[in-house]
Formats: sequence, C-alpha cells, structure tokens
Amino acid sequence: MKFSSRIEACSLSPIRKFGPYLAEAQAKGRNVYQLNIGQPDIETPPVFLAAIRNYGSKVVGYAPSPGVNAYLEAAQEYYARLGYEVSCDDILATYGGSEALQILFSCILEDGDEVLVPEPYYPNYDTFIRVTGATIHPIPTDPAKGYRFATREQIEPHINAHTRALLITNPGNPTGVVLTPEERRVLADIAKEHNLFLISDEVYRELVYGGQKPSSMLEFPDLAENVVVIDSVSKRFSATGARVGAIISRNRELMGHAMKIAQGRLCATTLDQIGAAALYRTMTPEYYDGVRAEYQRRRDAVEAALRKIPGVQFAYPEGAFYVMVKLPVDDADQLQYFLLQEFEDHGDTVMYAPGDGFYAEPGKGRDEVRIAYVNQVEKLQRAIEVLGLGIQAYNARQKQ
Amino acid sequence: MKFSSRIEACSLSPIRKFGPYLAEAQAKGRNVYQLNIGQPDIETPPVFLAAIRNYGSKVVGYAPSPGVNAYLEAAQEYYARLGYEVSCDDILATYGGSEALQILFSCILEDGDEVLVPEPYYPNYDTFIRVTGATIHPIPTDPAKGYRFATREQIEPHINAHTRALLITNPGNPTGVVLTPEERRVLADIAKEHNLFLISDEVYRELVYGGQKPSSMLEFPDLAENVVVIDSVSKRFSATGARVGAIISRNRELMGHAMKIAQGRLCATTLDQIGAAALYRTMTPEYYDGVRAEYQRRRDAVEAALRKIPGVQFAYPEGAFYVMVKLPVDDADQLQYFLLQEFEDHGDTVMYAPGDGFYAEPGKGRDEVRIAYVNQVEKLQRAIEVLGLGIQAYNARQKQ
Repeated sequence: MKFSSRIEACSLSPIRKFGPYLAEAQAKGRNVYQLNIGQPDIETPPVFLAAIRNYGSKVVGYAPSPGVNAYLEAAQEYYARLGYEVSCDDILATYGGSEALQILFSCILEDGDEVLVPEPYYPNYDTFIRVTGATIHPIPTDPAKGYRFATREQIEPHINAHTRALLITNPGNPTGVVLTPEERRVLADIAKEHNLFLISDEVYRELVYGGQKPSSMLEFPDLAENVVVIDSVSKRFSATGARVGAIISRNRELMGHAMKIAQGRLCATTLDQIGAAALYRTMTPEYYDGVRAEYQRRRDAVEAALRKIPGVQFAYPEGAFYVMVKLPVDDADQLQYFLLQEFEDHGDTVMYAPGDGFYAEPGKGRDEVRIAYVNQVEKLQRAIEVLGLGIQAYNARQKQ
Repeated sequence: MKFSSRIEACSLSPIRKFGPYLAEAQAKGRNVYQLNIGQPDIETPPVFLAAIRNYGSKVVGYAPSPGVNAYLEAAQEYYARLGYEVSCDDILATYGGSEALQILFSCILEDGDEVLVPEPYYPNYDTFIRVTGATIHPIPTDPAKGYRFATREQIEPHINAHTRALLITNPGNPTGVVLTPEERRVLADIAKEHNLFLISDEVYRELVYGGQKPSSMLEFPDLAENVVVIDSVSKRFSATGARVGAIISRNRELMGHAMKIAQGRLCATTLDQIGAAALYRTMTPEYYDGVRAEYQRRRDAVEAALRKIPGVQFAYPEGAFYVMVKLPVDDADQLQYFLLQEFEDHGDTVMYAPGDGFYAEPGKGRDEVRIAYVNQVEKLQRAIEVLGLGIQAYNARQKQ
C-alpha cells in the first residue's frame, strides 16, 4: 500500500518514543523517574471536575463548532484581565494547543512552504507542519547565549519567498527562554514588514520566574492580521488530559477558514470545555502565583542538582518547566536505551527527551536532552542524581 | 496574508452553515425543528457520566497516545462479541470518527491523490480530504435505485492511477443504504485487486432496520492490509459530545504512521475515554435493540409524513438515521433561508441539511435535502408537516 511521502518523512515523538522501553523497565520492577514528558503532578483545580460532575443534561451532545459559549466567554475575560481585548469571535475552541496548531497549519501551509522556527523547538511542530507538505526552516541559536533568537540579524537572513510564518514558543519549550518586551516588538516588526503570520505558542504564559508580567503577542493592535496565538489549559491548570485549547486571532479571514475545519470535525469535547470554563472563571492571581512559585523551586533544585554532574552544560531557564542540557556523552539516545535496559541505582532509573528531535538538522543535539521539572523537589533531586550515576556507568562501559 | 489553496477550496459545513440564521430565528421566538444535525435526543447511558464522576485521580493527566487501556480493551471486547478478532494494537483512540478520518487521510493522501466515494456522501469527508491536497472522485448513484453503489460496473470505471482508497459509509449517511454481505465482498475484492485502502465508516453499525446483523469490513481476514474501519461512540451511545472514536486496522505500517500523528497531538481526551470504556463494557444487546427499535419507529413516522407532501421523492432508508429527500422546489438553500427568515406556522419552522453539499459536482443535489430523524415521533411528524407547509408557501411566493 502506498503512504503519503509527507507522513514517511515524519518521526515518532522523541518525547514519547521510549514508551515501550519504559513499560519493560517498569515490568522488571524498576522505578523510572520520568523527566521526558511535561505532565505536571500538581493537582488540577477541583472546580474542573466539579463543573463536569454537575453537568445537568442527560444527553452529552455536540458543542457548537466554535466552542461552548461559557468557555469562550471565560477565556475572553481571562485575556481581558491580562489587558488584551479580544472578542469571542476571535477565539476558536480546540482539542488542546495541538489541534489549534493543526487547524492553523491546514489553513496557511501547503507543499513547499516554510515556517521559521528557532531551534531547538517543540518536536511536534515538525509533525504538524510536515503533514501539510511544508517544512520547518530553523533559526539556529547558541546555547552559550541562552538560546536567544529574537534579533533581526538572526531571523531576517532566513526569510525567503517560501516563508509563510514565524513560529515561536514563549515562554520557550524546550529552552525556557522568555522574550523581553523589546524582543517581542522586534518579532512583530519583522512579521509585519515581511507579511508573515506570527504564531505565538503561549501555553506556558504564567510560568515566568524573573518577575516578568505574563505577556502575549495579542499586545500589538497593529498586528491584527499577522498574530495568531496558540493557547491551552493543559499547563496553566495542570490539566493536560483535558484537551482544551484555542486559536486566538483577530484575522477574520483566517478565522473563517479555520471554521471550515472546526465545523468539519464538528466540535471539541463538550465536558472538558465546561470544566475549562470553570477554571478560567474561578482561578485567582494567587493561584497562578502559587503554581509559579512551585515550579520556580523545582527549577532551582534541578539547576543545583545538574551542577553536581561533571561536564553538563545548560542555560538557566527563565520560564516554562523545561531545561535543555548538554550531557558529557556521545549519544543521548544510546544513553536512554542503556538507562532503561541495563542501568539501575537502588532500583531507580530515569527518562528524558533526547535532544536531537528538537533540531531540524540530523545529528544536531545528539548530546543534548530536555528535562521537564514537573515533579516534587526531592524526586527531581534524586532523578538528576540517578542521571549523573547513569552517565558515569554509561561512559565507563563505553571505554571498555 | 496568503492562505493555503486547499483551504480556499473548502466550504463551511452544509449541515452547520445555517447556524447563524437559526440563532436569529430563535431570537425572534420561533420554534425551529432541527432536522439538520445528527444530534440524537436519546439519553446518553448514565454509566458514561458515572464513570467520569468516579474519576479518582486529582490530576487530569495525559492519556497514552494510543488510547486509555480500559477503552482499547473494552472496544476490543466489543468487536470480539460481534465476531471480529482485533488486538488492542489494531485500535487507535481518536477524537471521534472525525479525527480518525483526519489522521488516516494524513497518512495516505497527498496532492493529486483521489478517494472514491459514492455520492451523495457525508460532506465533511470533502473537507478532510481537500486539506491533504487530494480530492474526492465521486461514484454517481441513482436515487431511483435506492442510491446503491456496490457493483463492479459502478466502481471500476472510476479507478485510475491516482486512486488511493475507496471510502464508504455503512450504514449510509445520508442515504441509509445498508450493504448486503455480497456487496461487502464485491467491495473487498475491488480493493484487493486494485491495491486500494478500503475505508469503512461504520459509526451507525447497530442502526439497521431490516433484520440485518451489525456488520463490519473487519470480517475479511484476507483484507488485513486494505481495510481501515472508522468508528465512534457518538451515534451508537447517543454521546456525540464525548468525542471518542477509533481507527481500527490490521495494517501495521498504517498504524505505525498513524501513531506519529497520535503522539504529535499527545492524546485523546482522558475523561471521555474513561466514559467510553464504561459504555462498551456495560451495554447489552438489549440496549442496542432498544435504540434500534426507537429509530425504526422514527424512520417509519418520517416516511409516512413525507408521503403526505406532494412531489417529494426519497428512497426508503434501511439504516443510520437519515433520509435523503428530493423536494419539489428549485433550490433547497433558498428554501432554507425562506424557512428561517420569513416563514412560520403557529410559531414553528424547520431546518434540514441542503443536499448540494453532499455531492461533488456543483449544482447537483440542489433540490435535495438530508433529514435526520433524531427526535421524538410527534416532533418529527410536526416538523415534516411544517416542511410541507413551508414548501407550499415558498413555491406560492416564487410564482408571484
């Protein structure tokens, strides 16, 4: 049978591809610290499940294609509290940030198109872009300069006739980079001058640790046609299984096209949207402060633990809940196989997301890994300690 | 800003495009009988919400990308009870049948490819296929011959070098056609001989009114590489807002490619899958019998009511819960505007899905409509009566 050449160019997720080996290790009784997936252990605010438990109708019927009104209104109020004026028509409810990206790319990309993305980047962008026939054109960054990318010098040389959009994650996954107001303006100017969509994935908006105010590219009223914000309740409310996100854009033509796909797939899940509405309605600034403080403690703990491993290099993450780390090994994929199949320390081993999947160029990032700090401090400290011991054992074996 | 030429070729859903006019009519106090959308009024079995209410974890976390184990196992048992052996690895949990189609088409289609689909067909197929750059190649059918399509004579002349798949809906939406065992074998033979995917959308499997046994294209073990079944809990369990479906295929390469996209979008919604597992686990043959009997009463009532309208033509639907009807009017779209904006009888008016969206060729089906019989018998009778009065008034106005 013949398959699409596009899907043949896609890969399994580097974040999830070791899932089968995880299961094997667990079957052998190993305790595996999972630093690979951004699955927070923080409680989903109980209002989410409470709202779903109170669902009153006897029929779990379709939601409207644009979204459940209560969810759209609650999201609109959330942006208004942050200082951004959007109408409910500027918001399209989606199955998480993932479907928001899929719908958007179906509207703006086709064969031969390019999307500029600073690398390292969230690997699922690659899958979503490739299935349209387009490709990522990476903007290289320097780990030694903290992976920063938002300058004309770094971006403009990569713009060509095929460029359709500039896609950024702010705060950054996997780098933790948080854009300054000046950097955001530079990106806005570039998008406007070159007539590009500026796609801003802001699902980690509140998770910033340097005293910055949560920000959004919605701040530029002159960029109404260019800016598309991708959002989700997953990380903000520790509700990754809820699958409620949104495309937010003031570009009417784009939202009209997006509605074709939204109507085609009928609706996003009714109950999750009802729960998400309750989250946006009831969460206070203190809630966000508490979550932020907890992740900041974790970030600090991971940083301190990493510094104890000889030979690791990393940039201090300012936001989100990941850190990209260069390990003193030849190949992080091979180390991961070793950690899951051969290594253990008092029954413990560890998983991360190997770094090469975060780069466009084959071979790049082979000695890097992404670590998600989504567990309690003591667990993270132990996990990083186990990683250090695993590296020692792996390198000792290599030398034999 | 530049958009994809593919999305520009897509349309809004003919089933949902009158949504704004519905809202206007309702704001004027009209009671609108909605025969356009397949949104059943039958109660979602309470085990669905009960299972979700009992969700024990404090964190609504990601599900595994292939699906929640309990859901996959319950679905596997459901197919086994029907007589079809599939492994859990042959099932991929999706956001309803819609995402199952989207993922599948991303795996097998690209620019220039064609999918054979008997027309009239479910219009959202067109959107999902067009965004890949492929197109529907329609297999014409004859309303006077009950829209039947499963013969070599009707299908084989349309196969060419671009044909990748044959897509059928069985029982049929919008036609109500239910394939005979002999017809299913003909389709299987054609797919095998011409090396095509045979995509069988079976979301209405149990809704058959001629004493047939619920069937599936999974019945052909020799078609393991070709057959892909699309399924969903939406219609079977009256849970359209639950958004839980599946791709079922024994083609390992296909399922491997599908997993790339499944991992990319992380997972289908966790809570809905837990509810869906409870549905498949606890629903008895008596449940399906009861639902089938209720829809059969409704079909019979709609048929009797339609026969009272002078000039309508339709084929007796054997399955699903739709009937395709040719109306004695020039343009069903114009009639729909009239019904929502100008007409009322004792405050009542009616909506349907205009027929042209169910055909590939522009202009075809312009005097046809799809009626969904998903309401109580008395409501359906009144709705069809109102439709008849509306047609009279519309035609009288046209003649002025």
